[in-house]
Amino acid sequence: MTSREDALALDRADALAPLREQFVLPAGLIYLDGNSLGVLPKATAARLQRAVLDEWGQGLIGSWNSAGWIDLPQRVGDKIARLVGAAPGELVVADSTSVNLYKVLAAALAMVRDDAPRRRVILSERSNFPTDLYIAESLAAERGFELVLVDDAEGLPQRLGPDVAVLMLTHVNYRSGRMHDMAALSRAAHEAGALALWDLAHSAGAVPVALAADGADFAVGCGYKYLNGGPGAPAFVWVHPRHAGRFRQPLSGWMGHASPFEFTPGYRPAAGISRYLCGTPPVLSMLALECGVDTLLAAEPFGGIAAMRAKSLALTRFFAALVDARCAGHGLVLVSPRDDTLRGSQVCLAREDGAYAIVQALIARGVTGDFRAGDGGRVPDILRFGFTPLYTRFVDAWDAVEHLKQVLDSGEWREPRFQQRQAVT
Amino acid sequence: MTSREDALALDRADALAPLREQFVLPAGLIYLDGNSLGVLPKATAARLQRAVLDEWGQGLIGSWNSAGWIDLPQRVGDKIARLVGAAPGELVVADSTSVNLYKVLAAALAMVRDDAPRRRVILSERSNFPTDLYIAESLAAERGFELVLVDDAEGLPQRLGPDVAVLMLTHVNYRSGRMHDMAALSRAAHEAGALALWDLAHSAGAVPVALAADGADFAVGCGYKYLNGGPGAPAFVWVHPRHAGRFRQPLSGWMGHASPFEFTPGYRPAAGISRYLCGTPPVLSMLALECGVDTLLAAEPFGGIAAMRAKSLALTRFFAALVDARCAGHGLVLVSPRDDTLRGSQVCLAREDGAYAIVQALIARGVTGDFRAGDGGRVPDILRFGFTPLYTRFVDAWDAVEHLKQVLDSGEWREPRFQQRQAVT
Repeated sequence: MTSREDALALDRADALAPLREQFVLPAGLIYLDGNSLGVLPKATAARLQRAVLDEWGQGLIGSWNSAGWIDLPQRVGDKIARLVGAAPGELVVADSTSVNLYKVLAAALAMVRDDAPRRRVILSERSNFPTDLYIAESLAAERGFELVLVDDAEGLPQRLGPDVAVLMLTHVNYRSGRMHDMAALSRAAHEAGALALWDLAHSAGAVPVALAADGADFAVGCGYKYLNGGPGAPAFVWVHPRHAGRFRQPLSGWMGHASPFEFTPGYRPAAGISRYLCGTPPVLSMLALECGVDTLLAAEPFGGIAAMRAKSLALTRFFAALVDARCAGHGLVLVSPRDDTLRGSQVCLAREDGAYAIVQALIARGVTGDFRAGDGGRVPDILRFGFTPLYTRFVDAWDAVEHLKQVLDSGEWREPRFQQRQAVT
Repeated sequence: MTSREDALALDRADALAPLREQFVLPAGLIYLDGNSLGVLPKATAARLQRAVLDEWGQGLIGSWNSAGWIDLPQRVGDKIARLVGAAPGELVVADSTSVNLYKVLAAALAMVRDDAPRRRVILSERSNFPTDLYIAESLAAERGFELVLVDDAEGLPQRLGPDVAVLMLTHVNYRSGRMHDMAALSRAAHEAGALALWDLAHSAGAVPVALAADGADFAVGCGYKYLNGGPGAPAFVWVHPRHAGRFRQPLSGWMGHASPFEFTPGYRPAAGISRYLCGTPPVLSMLALECGVDTLLAAEPFGGIAAMRAKSLALTRFFAALVDARCAGHGLVLVSPRDDTLRGSQVCLAREDGAYAIVQALIARGVTGDFRAGDGGRVPDILRFGFTPLYTRFVDAWDAVEHLKQVLDSGEWREPRFQQRQAVT
């Protein structure tokens, strides 16, 4: 039988433990929601003060050059590239994940229209993150394509037929934590003559990603989850260099122009990925993102993403095993895959009723996870717990399950105060 | 003959003078570039520290509700609405000006396609800000429209024929400072059966704008110029309520969904202007923008935008008259209109050669204006000076012209160190 002492021993043996010192962690809080909003790096507040008081306040317009603001999309992009298997110059920070998805999907559809005009299907999963499906729905309607959704990931390879233009997937599912095999599915897409587009929202900084090696064509990702970039941090976008020169996108703003400061009429896209910039970037939010990305690069001397992945898998295995052992009989069903190769960095538990209230009762006890609603039928309500190996400890996993057990054993989640839904959780 | 004493007297008589205390102004700097990047409000640094340390650092994901992050696009939008003649609930802060222009132009073209499919022209000016033309060029190509540019604003009404779908203009020209008559041109557009779309980048917070009363259909604007929102601050977007329910836009991200947190497949746009949100907004940059907008609302007890406009016109008249009187014979030509009703809040001077170096020599003396390149032919190189009535004094105008006179009299701008161009100015 595992004990809290065992958890503490695992933490003592954890080579990544010193990296936790990079973060501000509220006293007494067990935060298992870094997959929704990463915690605050200690460096961020001072960096932003310097940016505000010195660079903006004193340097003013000159700071676009002297403080390097103008290079931020590429500079922070090059740092993120190291986390996702991309080369310098291939990835930029820009806009939001949704806007970037619009750019890459539009580019992909335009390439297909030229090369294989009879391919009219955008293939994805019904369980993909809604904003991805909304953007695809919009582009499909606008460009005369059809969005086809499969119910089970296993059905994707069979559906990859001669009508498919683009396979559009989120690498790690936001609800279940299930992770696709990027290499195998990208290869299957290519063998079927389709392009492969990946959303890394729940992957970048959480699991190993090898965009170029795995054959992805396009990718987008999020800055405010595992990258610790702060609320609404800008997102990123990548295109495989084999598409160099062909990946035009419709949001043709001046920052993606070959010579933005010549103020010439007539759009000429920049040579590489910089054409995926559009308007003037939010400098302050981008500097906060850089501090967040730096917390992940700080793991490189400790084994980098491979070491983080090993700890993440150990944490999620540990948590799931504790739930099995200690919360048995309470109707919790593990939704996340038990197979390490299929699991991202989170654990999701389904329950027929009460999932929302149980999450609220845990929050009241200082354990932050989140709730994701089902559809009342096939898709269950879930409790979601994210594990961020840079700052989550094994003892946090232990204590979280202890609280979960107490909430369920006592039935306190049935109290009316835990039933009322808020706008956002 | 006007003297420096006269300028000081004008400042003593200026009822808006106390509002300057709201800002951090570098010692010894005369900053006439608030039309490119507004100065730092004193409140911003502390507000951002609170947002970072308390709301993000301690409140974490819960701050989307408890700190009101989720309402920021509408809350800051309602404040900007007061500056541009819009009602609460009609305007949101989102994305960049370029991205917002894409949304409104796409919406306008879709409305025209339904109502008047033979209208295929987007009409604008060749001198419009390049990013506006780039976005229009992209949408025109994608949707089968034609972008038609006139060389002179006077030619706009004649060109408004039965083929025009949308009249797309920037209210105050970024180079010349020339201001359009929004009411007359919107009316002319409507009489010709076209929609009127306005970019307020150099208007919001600078000149009176009455979007609804003047009959505009769509508007976008910038947060980092006269609104003092900080480098790359998010932009805003407005649609006339008469188009309620019809102004769909293609960037259909989850934040513009009717129920974003139900995570349901199938995009249903929010009821009002909130459908112009797309991805998760950059909270930190948006909070800085709110501080900036608050500096303009602080002028309301002092007469608000009308009082600011009166001071702005007095400043630009004063500056232009001083250039006439004190820099005569140096080849400077006033490009901005002398007619108050046609002039925004800036003064532009053309010179056949040396404009770039003269701006650099002024910057070296602590006078920040900026340079905008011509096309080597019809469009001249210009020196551009922005006047921001909240923090620019008459003595600043006097001193700037004194420096300009000295730079020209001495010929110091011919020194090699002032000739080399930087990436951004």
